[in-house]
Amino acid sequence: MTFNKITQPILDAINAIVGSDAVLTEKQVIDNYSHDETEDLVYYPEVVVKPSTPEQVAELLKICNIALIPVTPRGAGTGLAGGALPVKGGVLISMERFNRIIDIDEQNLQATVEPGVITEVFMNAVADKGLLYPVDPASKGSCFIGGNVANCSGGPRVVKYGTIREYILNLEVVLPNGEIIWTGANTLKYASGYNLTQLLIGSEGTLGIVTKIVTKLIPAPTMDALMLASFTSNEDACAAVSAIFRAGVVPSGLEFMERRGMEWVIEHDGIAFDLKDGIEAFLLIEANGSNQDVIFGDCEKINEVLEQYNCQDVLFADAAAQKEELWRIRRTMAVSVKSNSVYKEEDTVVPRAQLPQLIKGIKEIGSKYGFSSVCYGHAGDGNLHVNIVKENMSDDDWNNKLKDGITEIFELTVSLGGTLSGEHGIGLVQKDYMPIKYSPVHFAIWKGIKQVFDPNGILNPGKIFN
Amino acid sequence: MTFNKITQPILDAINAIVGSDAVLTEKQVIDNYSHDETEDLVYYPEVVVKPSTPEQVAELLKICNIALIPVTPRGAGTGLAGGALPVKGGVLISMERFNRIIDIDEQNLQATVEPGVITEVFMNAVADKGLLYPVDPASKGSCFIGGNVANCSGGPRVVKYGTIREYILNLEVVLPNGEIIWTGANTLKYASGYNLTQLLIGSEGTLGIVTKIVTKLIPAPTMDALMLASFTSNEDACAAVSAIFRAGVVPSGLEFMERRGMEWVIEHDGIAFDLKDGIEAFLLIEANGSNQDVIFGDCEKINEVLEQYNCQDVLFADAAAQKEELWRIRRTMAVSVKSNSVYKEEDTVVPRAQLPQLIKGIKEIGSKYGFSSVCYGHAGDGNLHVNIVKENMSDDDWNNKLKDGITEIFELTVSLGGTLSGEHGIGLVQKDYMPIKYSPVHFAIWKGIKQVFDPNGILNPGKIFN
Repeated sequence: MTFNKITQPILDAINAIVGSDAVLTEKQVIDNYSHDETEDLVYYPEVVVKPSTPEQVAELLKICNIALIPVTPRGAGTGLAGGALPVKGGVLISMERFNRIIDIDEQNLQATVEPGVITEVFMNAVADKGLLYPVDPASKGSCFIGGNVANCSGGPRVVKYGTIREYILNLEVVLPNGEIIWTGANTLKYASGYNLTQLLIGSEGTLGIVTKIVTKLIPAPTMDALMLASFTSNEDACAAVSAIFRAGVVPSGLEFMERRGMEWVIEHDGIAFDLKDGIEAFLLIEANGSNQDVIFGDCEKINEVLEQYNCQDVLFADAAAQKEELWRIRRTMAVSVKSNSVYKEEDTVVPRAQLPQLIKGIKEIGSKYGFSSVCYGHAGDGNLHVNIVKENMSDDDWNNKLKDGITEIFELTVSLGGTLSGEHGIGLVQKDYMPIKYSPVHFAIWKGIKQVFDPNGILNPGKIFN
Repeated sequence: MTFNKITQPILDAINAIVGSDAVLTEKQVIDNYSHDETEDLVYYPEVVVKPSTPEQVAELLKICNIALIPVTPRGAGTGLAGGALPVKGGVLISMERFNRIIDIDEQNLQATVEPGVITEVFMNAVADKGLLYPVDPASKGSCFIGGNVANCSGGPRVVKYGTIREYILNLEVVLPNGEIIWTGANTLKYASGYNLTQLLIGSEGTLGIVTKIVTKLIPAPTMDALMLASFTSNEDACAAVSAIFRAGVVPSGLEFMERRGMEWVIEHDGIAFDLKDGIEAFLLIEANGSNQDVIFGDCEKINEVLEQYNCQDVLFADAAAQKEELWRIRRTMAVSVKSNSVYKEEDTVVPRAQLPQLIKGIKEIGSKYGFSSVCYGHAGDGNLHVNIVKENMSDDDWNNKLKDGITEIFELTVSLGGTLSGEHGIGLVQKDYMPIKYSPVHFAIWKGIKQVFDPNGILNPGKIFN
């Protein structure tokens, strides 16, 4: 695909569409849009544009489609796979002005929201009405719900409430040719033709730009219990995970954390936590609901399972502040890792009973290639974030040899029935690994679908598979 | 699309692939495959083929793809939109020999199953291990799970457990060119390229033929309560539906039934039920879980809501046999309607608080066009099955005028935020109504996607949009 550069007439046209206050071109002001949270990668767009209506997005796309200008849609820039990086230059469309919660429909338990709303802002707004939107990525305080849709983002509560796919009912989408469509209907069930809503979810801004989102809401639980269980080995902790479900309990959170991640959070955030010698891994386990007996019963069953897997200690959080502190440890782990070292994060996901084999294998591969890793993640979903840290690794090894090690990690993941990403997406940094799991037939289908939506290939080029 | 007829050499090749005992050509023996449960429609295939392996399906498709022979995949033939009708003749591929439950993985709470397994057989097999596969269409005793995947089928428990989309993790699919692929991975989360699993669900056998299905399972609830609430008006019953959720309860079943449907079931099945004068509508409401107090609490809250909506009586089923009887009434309603009259069934779905407007409008449209209807369905999902019964309507009105009435029903459905089908699919009989909801842009995208998978258009032609 050969793209063109933005010319002055094109820039004039863009200015005419959105107004000059919504167009950034100076290098200093577009610095913030040249990176997301992926490693230390930086790519500059030629221009940053901040439309505020679907019609403006449509006009922008029409021009870029005709002029063959690459367009990279961007949410809050919290992505971990480089999906929002404008690797081919061109126009970066920031969705930050699409920040309205249009409607919270308490009759239907649905909401209509623009993609630039911060996920936690939306969650709080529905919580004020006694409702729950349960898809809460670790970055919920800063990420946009539109980015969550684009990346099929998860978070700790998927384990009980299901994926974002179950909560996104309908999407307003602008296609590269400027057409604006709704992908489906505002209904809980849908069996009316190929499901374009589901196809758009997880398509990482390569098929269209989402401008409105209709979500399902559910009644909020009224109480929860949180416990932190400690283990002397990663494998014991991981083995306990699937056993909890086999005991008939579905926790509302079931997170794994390695000791080293915990150490770095304690150090980075100055958290008072007594990290005992010999402890290597933790499970953070939440049970929620609206009945104390049920939650206590769940906790008892979980406790019985933990004992069978050599759990050393179980800390029950007994106040809201302590719960908040424990969740904060988990949520800030990525930031702490990042502050300690250059790193690469892999988002492996396997059937959950395969977690012990996965983590054992990751450590063996690390030994073989000379890298260390800090692992944590949504163990209840079989989703393990593998943070490979550079530390003392030579630049040469980091830049050249490491790729073979990551390849082995993904080969192991795939051999265990898993795949490359559970919730971060493929974006830029994982796309070279896609052939480990997917055949030329998959690539041909994906490219064919891309061609249907975006024949000129202007939307988020250089991502997922192309 | 111009198709060819099956020649003797092609028939010989088909026989060589599957063996002559798996090939039916005599009119008498293929009678059973000329119709599904859709109205009184009959279309004969030229040949019925019963492969038993993915490789056999691949070889069959390769031949038909080269020779331009239409191929209609068929599950158990319980469909209500004509999806399995071989409207262009050609080869009908019956999946009945794909009837193995390959694996129930109790470690991962997943199962691998062939598409020709009867849904209830599968549900019972996992229930024997204390697990739940919750997607139970009314036809669960006879439908195939492969048909459920193809049609994005629902059932009463979607309201609590979510749609089939949340339970299908991965699919083995044979493409028209004979390639066999797995669409995804056996993982609870998936953010690795366009989600082909989700695209195949609900594609009604037009993109590929599913040969293996990996499902998610969950721990089974251990108890439930069932109540039947009676109302003097449809609108009161429908209005109570959304109020139940607003009260913070998510029932495991919330079904609406009109009086006339009840009458016909009682008559057809000889069920002893005291149908009081003045009662026009019923809600069948189930609450389930693993704690009696919670279930009782839910029932109390539901009861309070019902009182606010002029509920006349609430019958609590107090024994398993009575629960079974009440569910049997709901499940056999379609059969009873069918035994009483020629009928057409529409599968309308709207946001659930719009149900009162929907049912009121349907009756008004019926008065205008001179048809009567029996309505029932999964009210908790906003999914209302509208059975238009012929009774005394003239053949001329039935064949010509009725279509305008159905068009008005769908126009109303769409104006309320809904769509044409919640769980039956579009198949043959709804496709002419698709432009009511969908624009040429939608059709172009669907046709583009179809072209990617099936460039010669051999798979289930004449369905959904073409």
